[in-house]
Amino acid sequence: MTSILVLNGPNLNMLGSREPEIYGTDSLTAIERICRERGDHLGVDIEFLHSNHEGTLIDAIHNASTRTDAIVINAAAYTHTSVALMDALKSVPQPVVEIHLTNIHRRESFRSRSYISLAADGVILGFGAKGYALAIEAALGLAKPR
Amino acid sequence: MTSILVLNGPNLNMLGSREPEIYGTDSLTAIERICRERGDHLGVDIEFLHSNHEGTLIDAIHNASTRTDAIVINAAAYTHTSVALMDALKSVPQPVVEIHLTNIHRRESFRSRSYISLAADGVILGFGAKGYALAIEAALGLAKPR
Amino acid sequence: MTSILVLNGPNLNMLGSREPEIYGTDSLTAIERICRERGDHLGVDIEFLHSNHEGTLIDAIHNASTRTDAIVINAAAYTHTSVALMDALKSVPQPVVEIHLTNIHRRESFRSRSYISLAADGVILGFGAKGYALAIEAALGLAKPR
Amino acid sequence: MTSILVLNGPNLNMLGSREPEIYGTDSLTAIERICRERGDHLGVDIEFLHSNHEGTLIDAIHNASTRTDAIVINAAAYTHTSVALMDALKSVPQPVVEIHLTNIHRRESFRSRSYISLAADGVILGFGAKGYALAIEAALGLAKPR
Amino acid sequence: MTSILVLNGPNLNMLGSREPEIYGTDSLTAIERICRERGDHLGVDIEFLHSNHEGTLIDAIHNASTRTDAIVINAAAYTHTSVALMDALKSVPQPVVEIHLTNIHRRESFRSRSYISLAADGVILGFGAKGYALAIEAALGLAKPR
Amino acid sequence: MTSILVLNGPNLNMLGSREPEIYGTDSLTAIERICRERGDHLGVDIEFLHSNHEGTLIDAIHNASTRTDAIVINAAAYTHTSVALMDALKSVPQPVVEIHLTNIHRRESFRSRSYISLAADGVILGFGAKGYALAIEAALGLAKPR
Amino acid sequence: MTSILVLNGPNLNMLGSREPEIYGTDSLTAIERICRERGDHLGVDIEFLHSNHEGTLIDAIHNASTRTDAIVINAAAYTHTSVALMDALKSVPQPVVEIHLTNIHRRESFRSRSYISLAADGVILGFGAKGYALAIEAALGLAKPR
Amino acid sequence: MTSILVLNGPNLNMLGSREPEIYGTDSLTAIERICRERGDHLGVDIEFLHSNHEGTLIDAIHNASTRTDAIVINAAAYTHTSVALMDALKSVPQPVVEIHLTNIHRRESFRSRSYISLAADGVILGFGAKGYALAIEAALGLAKPR
Amino acid sequence: MTSILVLNGPNLNMLGSREPEIYGTDSLTAIERICRERGDHLGVDIEFLHSNHEGTLIDAIHNASTRTDAIVINAAAYTHTSVALMDALKSVPQPVVEIHLTNIHRRESFRSRSYISLAADGVILGFGAKGYALAIEAALGLAKPR
Amino acid sequence: MTSILVLNGPNLNMLGSREPEIYGTDSLTAIERICRERGDHLGVDIEFLHSNHEGTLIDAIHNASTRTDAIVINAAAYTHTSVALMDALKSVPQPVVEIHLTNIHRRESFRSRSYISLAADGVILGFGAKGYALAIEAALGLAKPR
Amino acid sequence: MTSILVLNGPNLNMLGSREPEIYGTDSLTAIERICRERGDHLGVDIEFLHSNHEGTLIDAIHNASTRTDAIVINAAAYTHTSVALMDALKSVPQPVVEIHLTNIHRRESFRSRSYISLAADGVILGFGAKGYALAIEAALGLAKPR
Amino acid sequence: MTSILVLNGPNLNMLGSREPEIYGTDSLTAIERICRERGDHLGVDIEFLHSNHEGTLIDAIHNASTRTDAIVINAAAYTHTSVALMDALKSVPQPVVEIHLTNIHRRESFRSRSYISLAADGVILGFGAKGYALAIEAALGLAKPR
Repeated sequence: MTSILVLNGPNLNMLGSREPEIYGTDSLTAIERICRERGDHLGVDIEFLHSNHEGTLIDAIHNASTRTDAIVINAAAYTHTSVALMDALKSVPQPVVEIHLTNIHRRESFRSRSYISLAADGVILGFGAKGYALAIEAALGLAKPR
Repeated sequence: MTSILVLNGPNLNMLGSREPEIYGTDSLTAIERICRERGDHLGVDIEFLHSNHEGTLIDAIHNASTRTDAIVINAAAYTHTSVALMDALKSVPQPVVEIHLTNIHRRESFRSRSYISLAADGVILGFGAKGYALAIEAALGLAKPR
Repeated sequence: MTSILVLNGPNLNMLGSREPEIYGTDSLTAIERICRERGDHLGVDIEFLHSNHEGTLIDAIHNASTRTDAIVINAAAYTHTSVALMDALKSVPQPVVEIHLTNIHRRESFRSRSYISLAADGVILGFGAKGYALAIEAALGLAKPR
Repeated sequence: MTSILVLNGPNLNMLGSREPEIYGTDSLTAIERICRERGDHLGVDIEFLHSNHEGTLIDAIHNASTRTDAIVINAAAYTHTSVALMDALKSVPQPVVEIHLTNIHRRESFRSRSYISLAADGVILGFGAKGYALAIEAALGLAKPR
Repeated sequence: MTSILVLNGPNLNMLGSREPEIYGTDSLTAIERICRERGDHLGVDIEFLHSNHEGTLIDAIHNASTRTDAIVINAAAYTHTSVALMDALKSVPQPVVEIHLTNIHRRESFRSRSYISLAADGVILGFGAKGYALAIEAALGLAKPR
Repeated sequence: MTSILVLNGPNLNMLGSREPEIYGTDSLTAIERICRERGDHLGVDIEFLHSNHEGTLIDAIHNASTRTDAIVINAAAYTHTSVALMDALKSVPQPVVEIHLTNIHRRESFRSRSYISLAADGVILGFGAKGYALAIEAALGLAKPR
Repeated sequence: MTSILVLNGPNLNMLGSREPEIYGTDSLTAIERICRERGDHLGVDIEFLHSNHEGTLIDAIHNASTRTDAIVINAAAYTHTSVALMDALKSVPQPVVEIHLTNIHRRESFRSRSYISLAADGVILGFGAKGYALAIEAALGLAKPR
Repeated sequence: MTSILVLNGPNLNMLGSREPEIYGTDSLTAIERICRERGDHLGVDIEFLHSNHEGTLIDAIHNASTRTDAIVINAAAYTHTSVALMDALKSVPQPVVEIHLTNIHRRESFRSRSYISLAADGVILGFGAKGYALAIEAALGLAKPR
Repeated sequence: MTSILVLNGPNLNMLGSREPEIYGTDSLTAIERICRERGDHLGVDIEFLHSNHEGTLIDAIHNASTRTDAIVINAAAYTHTSVALMDALKSVPQPVVEIHLTNIHRRESFRSRSYISLAADGVILGFGAKGYALAIEAALGLAKPR
Repeated sequence: MTSILVLNGPNLNMLGSREPEIYGTDSLTAIERICRERGDHLGVDIEFLHSNHEGTLIDAIHNASTRTDAIVINAAAYTHTSVALMDALKSVPQPVVEIHLTNIHRRESFRSRSYISLAADGVILGFGAKGYALAIEAALGLAKPR
Repeated sequence: MTSILVLNGPNLNMLGSREPEIYGTDSLTAIERICRERGDHLGVDIEFLHSNHEGTLIDAIHNASTRTDAIVINAAAYTHTSVALMDALKSVPQPVVEIHLTNIHRRESFRSRSYISLAADGVILGFGAKGYALAIEAALGLAKPR
Repeated sequence: MTSILVLNGPNLNMLGSREPEIYGTDSLTAIERICRERGDHLGVDIEFLHSNHEGTLIDAIHNASTRTDAIVINAAAYTHTSVALMDALKSVPQPVVEIHLTNIHRRESFRSRSYISLAADGVILGFGAKGYALAIEAALGLAKPR
């Protein structure tokens, strides 16, 4: 069975209460449910993780290299600052889908630069929690048999 | 019935033969078929247009304001240079999904800047022709009843 | 009788309904009326054109070279991107008055750069539709007998 | 009776003899006369001031807050360097019209940046002394009853 | 009783021996004592934490959201690089006071940019260990009853 | 008795009525009272000055060199443009505390650069009128016996 | 027989009367004659086109892909702004020679950047109308049998 | 006996399988062996650590301050983003040798900036795993008796 | 008798006590003496002025236009920020010699830009008080009979 | 008889073996032969020089001022760094044709800037060794009788 | 026997007396001795050259192409400005080791850019004269049999 | 007897005929005479050299270290590009006076940057050939007994 790792970066555990006028009212639990529903629909196993620690996210990507077929990642604030996460994604053979809840290009200028995009195959952004379902489908389309 | 305008910018008529190592081998006709198939699946009417003329694309957006519920746009090279297209998209009330075949952030630096992103609700890029199907679904999710 | 060409660029046909909190509620028809009223008052013939096509605007400027005594131009979004329009204005002997409805220096930073200003004799901006009347008067002051 | 303050910044007292190939041959006295003539024509009282001192110009703006209905300002060289003048103009409720004799966008690059524009409602530039008459009319159009 | 979280970032545990010509000779323990003394004086409970781990600092901010009334943060080197810490501070409702021992604007140019300042209500810098006492007082002034 | 000069720059005389959504509703008189109250509490003599003239502020700093033990300065708009004020502060031996009512780092980008910071020992910003009381205390801590 | 498309962009129809101190006194008709003469001399068929419309130039390049062996292009003002023309030239297999009448590197700084150069095999500039003859010869040297 | 800490940053645990065309086929274990061999040859004790966590690397540097005589560090991706690691290296008295497997100046432009270089005594880069042996020798040359 | 105006800008009245390690120990009085001695030697009348007020310096330049044959100016900090002083110098026909005590190109980067240089005929810098004597001689060489 | 100096800069003596995938396989001797053939064809005398020394190239240009009618120069790497060569070309009255074997605008960004272009009448680049023949013809077209 | 060329650029002949606080007290003769000692130790023949002339250094690199197996180069000031030296190093097949006595990244910002690094295989910097011994060893490791 | 080396860089041998509207009509021989006359007047021995070769100028500076008491240098075009000349001047103990015939700050922007200024004690520019006499006097004032 195809397996997709969905990785969530810093502060996404605060979704729902965190600046809802920007990020919407869906909690991370609601997003996980959306992922699992689309996963069930497509016959894909979903591994759903969150961490505020850059190093923990890197470890998770390394571990994914033998367990999953594709990675969906919302690196949140690390998107704009972490060369290390970019390098981690490049160090594994899985295809990578970058996802953001908001349209980062309509926000502060420093959010326009994404190191993750330099390692990702494709990007989906601005569709809120619904975007995760699209990302699961996109990742499945890119996944190659292990 | 919900109607979505799919707008394609300069040089996309050359798809298939144009730099296939970058853009893939799908022709614009193949992309139109992918759009219509997803549209049929979702019960959405698809209007599919192409032009190499910036002015014609602007006219099409203006006309869309009374005929369609959402716009999916691959502005191709105009993405990076056309404030006029951005303003056209802002001049109509329809939600806008920006789409690119390639991951524009892994190409020449001038392709990283998108004026379309400043007017779009969301962006999908890097998934080739398949990305259009995701964009149709995303646009439907954003469309509001006229 | 002195003749002034008033040229309007992309998306100005959407005035009135387009982002009225930025551009006001006057339609392009209302602006044309303001121009003609001031023209009548000053004894000036007004030629009033609009196009969303950069090439059509260039053609109109070329044609103006034998028919009009001055040019008033609101190049809208092309203001910030079109070297070709700037060169067109420089290729004819008529004096040029640049006009904008809004104060472009208080908006996005890319709207601060005007190629039109590099070819214009003078600039009037920020006074909404009323500014066109001032521009007609200013253009008349600059016009030289053919 | 509506009252408009016309404020003139550094070196404008040298007009007429100062680099006439750039600034023309009209003296500041001639400009004052143009302002008063248009003021008489429109039924507007003109207060006409000049100073080479940034602080004196700021004081004059503060004083204007209870005495005038609109401000026309040619901040000359301070246009490009004075955040303090910009803040002074923002600290009073009067509408502001920025005026320049020359087209500052066709001169040295540091003259392209105007702090005054960030506080002004509208801008008129490049029409020489005649532009002051247009500015008076524009200011009157913006003035609100005290 | 009002409670204030005082958060200290990377390398601050080395204070006293670390580059004393820059950071002074007060240890982090001495700074904690200064905070508690001022807290006692003002009737404020002080929670004093240090970590070299960005993720741990983010977790601490999240936890603070239900336990404290204000945050005083010396993010040290993360000040200049961590969008994630900025987002964490924005994700909680507490007022934020940024503190630095040194005047960061008189040091290397990359220390002039502070992401923390974009999330902070106010900033106190350059007063060494004494600045923490001022920051406690400032934070108390901003704190709102939970 | 220790004496502290509190120096206030351009447009601060307009406080209370000037853009209160940015600067608050405290007048400069109210700020002077806050300074004197904290001065009385700490046994410090306060000299409180305001000018809109850069040269007058420089003169006041020079005069302070023999009369006061520390300088608290809110240079307002001159903060961002005046090398002369920075040099004046460096030309006297008194310690310098820079103060701003607002968090200048969350406003227009040109307000992020402070020449005053290059001459100041420490900076306090973003706490409104209350920040002056903190600045008095900070300045006292830095003052050395004459 | 080898066929070369010579494509001329915006405002080149105004040659002869347009800023002759910059562009010289040769009309576009004279340039066409120079091309045909050199073509005759070399046994090459010349297709000579002009348009002020970016879209029309793109269409012409696409059409050239089956009819001509090489492209000589003077994109005029679009040289500096049109990613779309660059992409069009890349979308066809023909070799491309970029030509300019003037030395664009000795003019305004924005004329130094050429998107066309990024798609061209070679560039000839600064030799006025005569340069077209050199460009025809250069293009013939690059042309490969269809 | 002289002791040298060899510190390895994020993703270096993936060496061997990670982009071997860039980083070569030596694993981190092979590099450790090279270090120990050169250490044995020079009579130096080698402490060899790896972590993907920035905070853990900082902690290790702090701990090194009492246990080792010199530090060799390959900070990998953190090289380009971590002011905190730079500050950690400056907070201890040990000499520092920066090492990279690849020539970072021939890769993406953001890899040209090294914060580590600002704290290091010397740098060795581009020699692959062999470079570690040179770094051990260089570090020994710099080490001072504790 | 030839007359030369020597104009001194902000903070130069503090010379001697002001940062003597940068500016030396000569007071402004000593510099005036050096100017007068060289003036006597060359048969030139010296008018020696100082002000901390930008407006006063501008007024002095305007007044000089009928009274002096050349201007020597040390604009001090205004050198780097005052377009108004530059314009004042351009508004009078006298030749201008710019003088600085220090080598401004070996100090902070913002001191490298001189607006005065854009209006000056020549520049002498870095020779301390002695440089004024050279500047008097240089100015005399440039002065033209009134 | 018309005489043209063909000047070749650093490393061009290595042509043929030097990075042939970039510079082609023609040696400098082959290029000289191409020049002489075209010279013979056009009735022009060719002086063909090479040096790796900037000073020697400058000397050659100076010497050319009395001996030749035009200069063709491939300054190679000095193109991008040598203001001295640019000034040398400006110091002689001969027309100048700049030539490059490769399209320098499709290579590293620092190769896009040419100081030679600022002194050249025209430029030919990207046609390999054949470009020299075109340059000879272009230079002859520009040469004026001595 | 393997042969290594050690090339030294401008001003290195002044080592020992030249700014010893930056470059240390070792003369170039001492450095040559260090190179020869390590060469003897490793069984490598050392060719040691110095020139202040860029052209002479280029000539030496060209000559090396048939005589040596690797190049060690300290290009000194030419490091930061010479594209020609970079191209020379690229024009020969030998591996290249770049060496600097000082840590150029802790000095003036213009010393951070190295054109040599773009042609070098590896870099060693900051270890003073001792670094040459490491460079010899590194070069030997890279050398391939001729 | 005090000895001053006057060093002249590239293209200065062409003075008189080279762009006289910029550089004036004095030849280098005339400048040498001006230097010798002032030298005779001041009792100073003048060594006057010119070279177009950067390396030769560096050699001359090195040789000067034992023979002269001060250096006057007009590095001409090398002023803007030669770190090597700057380093050469820093490698000798003599004081350095930089001289330029023209006001380099009123010319092309790349002429505003002077590497020589970073090594010079003082600078004199814009006074044509006469400036050399001032430079001799200034150099004598700085010279210290050998």
